[in-house]
Amino acid sequence: AEHLQLISLKHSIDDLYLLTMSIIIFFMQAGFAFMEAGAVRSKNTVNILIKNLLDMLIGGIAYWLIGFPLAFGSEGNFFLSYNFWANNNLPVKEYGHWFFDFVHAATASTLVSGSMAERCNFYAYLVYSFIITGFIYPVASHWAWHPQGWLKRTAFKDYAGGGVVHMLGGTCALVGAALMGPRISRFHGKTGEPHDIRGHSVPLAALGGFILLFGFLAFNAGFRGHISQSGDGEVISRALVNALLGACGGGVGALVIHRAGTFGPTNAWSFLMTLNGALAGLVGVCAGSDVFPSWAALVVGVGAGFTFLCLHFLLLRLKVDDPLDAFPVHFGGGLFGIVAVAFFMEGGIVFDPSRNSATVLGWNLVGAASISGWSASLCLVLFGILKKLGILRVSREMEIQGMDLMKHNEPAYPSTAWEDCDPGQYGT
Amino acid sequence: AEHLQLISLKHSIDDLYLLTMSIIIFFMQAGFAFMEAGAVRSKNTVNILIKNLLDMLIGGIAYWLIGFPLAFGSEGNFFLSYNFWANNNLPVKEYGHWFFDFVHAATASTLVSGSMAERCNFYAYLVYSFIITGFIYPVASHWAWHPQGWLKRTAFKDYAGGGVVHMLGGTCALVGAALMGPRISRFHGKTGEPHDIRGHSVPLAALGGFILLFGFLAFNAGFRGHISQSGDGEVISRALVNALLGACGGGVGALVIHRAGTFGPTNAWSFLMTLNGALAGLVGVCAGSDVFPSWAALVVGVGAGFTFLCLHFLLLRLKVDDPLDAFPVHFGGGLFGIVAVAFFMEGGIVFDPSRNSATVLGWNLVGAASISGWSASLCLVLFGILKKLGILRVSREMEIQGMDLMKHNEPAYPSTAWEDCDPGQYGT
Amino acid sequence: AEHLQLISLKHSIDDLYLLTMSIIIFFMQAGFAFMEAGAVRSKNTVNILIKNLLDMLIGGIAYWLIGFPLAFGSEGNFFLSYNFWANNNLPVKEYGHWFFDFVHAATASTLVSGSMAERCNFYAYLVYSFIITGFIYPVASHWAWHPQGWLKRTAFKDYAGGGVVHMLGGTCALVGAALMGPRISRFHGKTGEPHDIRGHSVPLAALGGFILLFGFLAFNAGFRGHISQSGDGEVISRALVNALLGACGGGVGALVIHRAGTFGPTNAWSFLMTLNGALAGLVGVCAGSDVFPSWAALVVGVGAGFTFLCLHFLLLRLKVDDPLDAFPVHFGGGLFGIVAVAFFMEGGIVFDPSRNSATVLGWNLVGAASISGWSASLCLVLFGILKKLGILRVSREMEIQGMDLMKHNEPAYPSTAWEDCDPGQYGT
Repeated sequence: AEHLQLISLKHSIDDLYLLTMSIIIFFMQAGFAFMEAGAVRSKNTVNILIKNLLDMLIGGIAYWLIGFPLAFGSEGNFFLSYNFWANNNLPVKEYGHWFFDFVHAATASTLVSGSMAERCNFYAYLVYSFIITGFIYPVASHWAWHPQGWLKRTAFKDYAGGGVVHMLGGTCALVGAALMGPRISRFHGKTGEPHDIRGHSVPLAALGGFILLFGFLAFNAGFRGHISQSGDGEVISRALVNALLGACGGGVGALVIHRAGTFGPTNAWSFLMTLNGALAGLVGVCAGSDVFPSWAALVVGVGAGFTFLCLHFLLLRLKVDDPLDAFPVHFGGGLFGIVAVAFFMEGGIVFDPSRNSATVLGWNLVGAASISGWSASLCLVLFGILKKLGILRVSREMEIQGMDLMKHNEPAYPSTAWEDCDPGQYGT
Repeated sequence: AEHLQLISLKHSIDDLYLLTMSIIIFFMQAGFAFMEAGAVRSKNTVNILIKNLLDMLIGGIAYWLIGFPLAFGSEGNFFLSYNFWANNNLPVKEYGHWFFDFVHAATASTLVSGSMAERCNFYAYLVYSFIITGFIYPVASHWAWHPQGWLKRTAFKDYAGGGVVHMLGGTCALVGAALMGPRISRFHGKTGEPHDIRGHSVPLAALGGFILLFGFLAFNAGFRGHISQSGDGEVISRALVNALLGACGGGVGALVIHRAGTFGPTNAWSFLMTLNGALAGLVGVCAGSDVFPSWAALVVGVGAGFTFLCLHFLLLRLKVDDPLDAFPVHFGGGLFGIVAVAFFMEGGIVFDPSRNSATVLGWNLVGAASISGWSASLCLVLFGILKKLGILRVSREMEIQGMDLMKHNEPAYPSTAWEDCDPGQYGT
Repeated sequence: AEHLQLISLKHSIDDLYLLTMSIIIFFMQAGFAFMEAGAVRSKNTVNILIKNLLDMLIGGIAYWLIGFPLAFGSEGNFFLSYNFWANNNLPVKEYGHWFFDFVHAATASTLVSGSMAERCNFYAYLVYSFIITGFIYPVASHWAWHPQGWLKRTAFKDYAGGGVVHMLGGTCALVGAALMGPRISRFHGKTGEPHDIRGHSVPLAALGGFILLFGFLAFNAGFRGHISQSGDGEVISRALVNALLGACGGGVGALVIHRAGTFGPTNAWSFLMTLNGALAGLVGVCAGSDVFPSWAALVVGVGAGFTFLCLHFLLLRLKVDDPLDAFPVHFGGGLFGIVAVAFFMEGGIVFDPSRNSATVLGWNLVGAASISGWSASLCLVLFGILKKLGILRVSREMEIQGMDLMKHNEPAYPSTAWEDCDPGQYGT
């Protein structure tokens, strides 16, 4: 009897752990929403807020209907699974995992809105949110995390979704931004020279960033999935410390590398570069935060921050307009991490250059290529069709006027609410 | 010895669960504060912030002095209890419950400030906050959740306080708004036609909303009260998933129903309607998030979102001015849920139309009527007296000038802080 | 076997408790960041945000390199310890404690930026952040919390760091503000009369405050360090309830005492005084929230709120410019609490005036003096050197122009992002 009670208690602890981490990770939705709200112009602020709210609400429905079944059904194959549609017959004891998996799907999906901000059609947005959360992400997560998934059965190592979540989201973000084209006036019509379009509120963006730093700790601490088994505590605390150090490396690294003029002369100590660098560092350590020694987490953070900067300036060259740097941060950080884990994990190439450690590198490259390829091809088809149908991008008029007034009739900061009230004809 | 240790461990897990959920639910105070701050004009922003801060601080004192004793004393009857005043003789092991119960009292109380925003007298506010948190809510929660409470002993089913917390708060909000009358210029003096008074910052309101979505997950996940007993994990994860799906149904439902022109022609995809719909959906599933099948949570969410819209437009007809839609969201969502639970719970009317399931419906209607009646009558007396004394509403002058300057001498966005500093006569 | 499993389960629960509390306390970084961002002028907003981000990122590196080793190494003496540099040889099972200790170091350090806001040189900031998080705080925490620390071995009683964290940070804040001198125009050049320099956004400051209230609950609930041992649950819930009541006492107390004209005539019900009072109350109960009876927590809160007001007005007299009231809130609240605990703890002077209770008072005074003396002397040297080198304060020109444009090239609210977009020469 006591043995059974012990087992039951273990389940309780694991349930509580998963519950708490999931709820905090869910709050990252607010983080993305406000980073994006701060990074757009005031005329598109409500638009980006409703998009961020809806990708969560529509994503919830999509994940319930088809996402979870495709990812974690009990019947399926190496590629996908196919039962538990709309939670049908899903044992209630799996609901905790359902929610935990959902918050990651939502993370992958929500970051796409950033790269397409200020010009993406509202209906197109609803469609692609549904498809990324309900199909593109779930299939990839099946590969990597379902016991039958083909990547799961290899040496592929991606602890907290640097590849599965962040590279996938980043890839979708790139394809979307590239197919849609840059915002009006982002690049000079003749010379192609970039023209800064600044966001309307650094404090709002900062708020989003600080919420993401908070949520990312739970993201890394939560991926173990259980805390009651021997060694769990060690792995989880290591992941937590490494998440912090990854942020330190990425943030300080990006700040210094940028300020040093590596990518062109500047004398600005940039807050937004530091913040994005810290986030890239957090993305970077995801793949191996459970196994990196502390110093390696710092190094990987710096590398991820540097990769973010490289891709940021590469996009400018390619005239791809990603207002939030969703691709540089999430794809860049994720890619660096998925490679780095083969080098810096315990027993990795740096410590023990052997066939074993090379195998991890090989499979991680295969995994990264597969996940990117999968999401890139589907997004090409998806966004290509939407573009052909003429519903990918808003009209020139709406882009110039802004979507808050024309689409939502809700200006973010209504001028009448900032004046003294004149009773006028509506007087009491 | 091991048996005792097991029991002790169970307590530890339950303590941790209650602690974590309580702290996150407490953060909903910030959610309400910022939803309200964004929804008022800039001239009343500091006023609504101090009210939201004080209903928590004064509420804490009220709940400590008399609230908890009235609700959860060990001596009492079917109507109220009457010991543990000011935590006197309250065993320390009950303190966790004390805090958990307090955060719900604070939730019920804080939402009232929304409906009375921009015109409620400061002293009146302090008085009614004390009374709602210290008396009105505690007595109703005694009925429903104290072992001796009269509702507790019936088939009344309200898992996470859709009735006890949200309908009660919503009722108080309605009575307050109705007795105070609308803000100057809210309705046309002759035709009675409503005139939109917009809030000054959609991003602030959105911030509040996202914090509430976060907190509501803990609200639903926390009400089980313990996580170490057999079946707890299932119930809690189900409540969590249902909370999400309720929000999905409510948000998407309200958006679509509103956009479809159900309540009048519009071509706006409204963010604020979507957000309030999602919150109504979360309120709606509270009564039965522990027992709804997933699809039913979605349906109940849609119903709650629809009810919110109906009451929103009804209030406009009745010329009741509820700036935050506190009544439509919390009373509407709560009422729909408290009825729906009898239909959609396992063994409910939809699945098994029997005497048993009808009994739940009957008692839930009785409970809803009693809670609304109780809070409506007390609020009528309370707000009636305050009105008679002439201290319910601020003066016409103060309402026009705004309370931030006249009452608090703290403008929300002081113009001098937005200009370049001219050293002037204070120069170093 | 079952006995071992039980022990392992206890560890799991404790790990989860520490993990969850640490993550929530970490979020206090956002709280400080936004309180400060709201309290400065718009021209220095990005500057204070990057400082708050960097004190976390640089602090992480400092704490990893030298901070933790100095505080909690396994080899050392009564004054400091000296192994585990850069986590070298640190057993992974200590990583949870590492993170928990780090978040407190970060709290002590971050509050200093408030008192030096709007005029502190960026490089000076980086240097002193490193030194406070990496050296000044760790040594003091070694004294009080390392088994070999000299204060730890006395009757010194400081449960949640009212002295070690808040008085220390407050002392550093005072020395920094005093040595740097007031902002241009803060005091009249001839009369010395203070001239209010208001922050640019009360809602941002309020946001920070609400986040701090949330985090402070975990701060008090978390300091027990474990939740699985007999009596832990009681201590933790008591600390939680006392934290709330301390905030109630401090907030309501400061509001009323200030409004009553105690420090000069006023007719303003001040939100910022209430908020700072509540925070002072939370700081005040830290020293004894595990042992205070509920009513005493309220009393201590009021006392801490009063102390905050006294020091606030004292600083004005002394012409010390502390834009965030970091010293009055954290030093004042902390000092009041560290004295009060000897009076109001169970068995304290109020209940049992004996040699035992007097001993606590004696050691607490010694501890408070030592911690303040230590941090004051080191800060005098540190800030003195920086001042001598001419890099403590920004140039007069930069102070007048604001640092956002001149140092970071990132205005907080770029005017171009608030206008309708004119395609111009960059047109598509």
